[in-house]
Amino acid sequence: MRTSSMLEQLMEALRCLPGVGPKSAQRMAFHLLQRNRKGGLQLAEALSQAMTEIGHCDQCRTFTEQDTCHICTNPKRQSNGQMCVVETPADIAAIEATGQYSGRYFVLMGHLSPLDGIGPSDIGLDLLDYRLAQGDIEEVILATNPTVEGEATAHYIAQLCKAHEVNASRIAHGVPMGGELELVDGTTLSHSLLGRLKL
Amino acid sequence: MRTSSMLEQLMEALRCLPGVGPKSAQRMAFHLLQRNRKGGLQLAEALSQAMTEIGHCDQCRTFTEQDTCHICTNPKRQSNGQMCVVETPADIAAIEATGQYSGRYFVLMGHLSPLDGIGPSDIGLDLLDYRLAQGDIEEVILATNPTVEGEATAHYIAQLCKAHEVNASRIAHGVPMGGELELVDGTTLSHSLLGRLKL
Repeated sequence: MRTSSMLEQLMEALRCLPGVGPKSAQRMAFHLLQRNRKGGLQLAEALSQAMTEIGHCDQCRTFTEQDTCHICTNPKRQSNGQMCVVETPADIAAIEATGQYSGRYFVLMGHLSPLDGIGPSDIGLDLLDYRLAQGDIEEVILATNPTVEGEATAHYIAQLCKAHEVNASRIAHGVPMGGELELVDGTTLSHSLLGRLKL
Repeated sequence: MRTSSMLEQLMEALRCLPGVGPKSAQRMAFHLLQRNRKGGLQLAEALSQAMTEIGHCDQCRTFTEQDTCHICTNPKRQSNGQMCVVETPADIAAIEATGQYSGRYFVLMGHLSPLDGIGPSDIGLDLLDYRLAQGDIEEVILATNPTVEGEATAHYIAQLCKAHEVNASRIAHGVPMGGELELVDGTTLSHSLLGRLKL
């Protein structure tokens, strides 16, 4: 369809969002134009601000528009000797939502992947090395994804912790709560057997 | 979750898009920040341009950044005496995609809905009245939605056409192509019987 070129540009631009195809982009563009121009303008403003001003925390590498994020500057978090290593800022959101953790974080922004040319310095392990050397971290909790790359990254960081004489632990893998044992895949089930806890 | 306030603003702003909840908004924000900041900036630009500059065509009321849209200014379309009345600009897109129609359009931007206080002038029927009076329209094809409001709107416009001695027709309602007769609802089936064509 040939429409006004500005509308076409908007539909094309909306497709940079994950999960938005041509049909959804059209629906979004018409919705904003017809019903919510103010919201559209606010979105434009928030987008251009976020894209230009949000950088990485100089302590944990998560997204923040300040030099240091609000978790790293929190004195309560600083006195806690735990550091949780995650792959993405979204993982911080998930862990914070549990309310079970009150230490600091370190965000890799990816995982080791030699085939894609992603080595230790690309995921900030030089900064992690520096932070472990400072000596205020007592335990590193490795919460990378349970994938081949995530496991390899966790293993690599565990070695780094050993070199600095810092305890390293890995989050438990096993049967998800509320699931049925018979529907759980074999690898998960064998992990849950190997990682059994004494009652 | 408390994150950087700019990130929170972005997630909140993304929720003005139809079908985007808190989870999708978070995914979109992180995706843009991590992988496609350039795309995000382009989207911001396209959005602010579209929201401020796109208005309505002075002939057919569809979205355009010009005074008159490219369909209304097309001389081939002008010499065609047909006018198709639709509820939204998205309907134009759908009809254009069929390649079956080469006349002009008129976009109501809604339908008559007395309960919501939407009367004839709110859906541009004064402009339609003026255009019908000009005398270059020979047939009005009513392609409003097959809903109660759409049918009522079509009926109202058919009366308007009668007053101007212009032919009015309604698009056919019946069994969709490729569907199975046994799965079609009763109202549609009775419409397809009533609207049967002689072979």
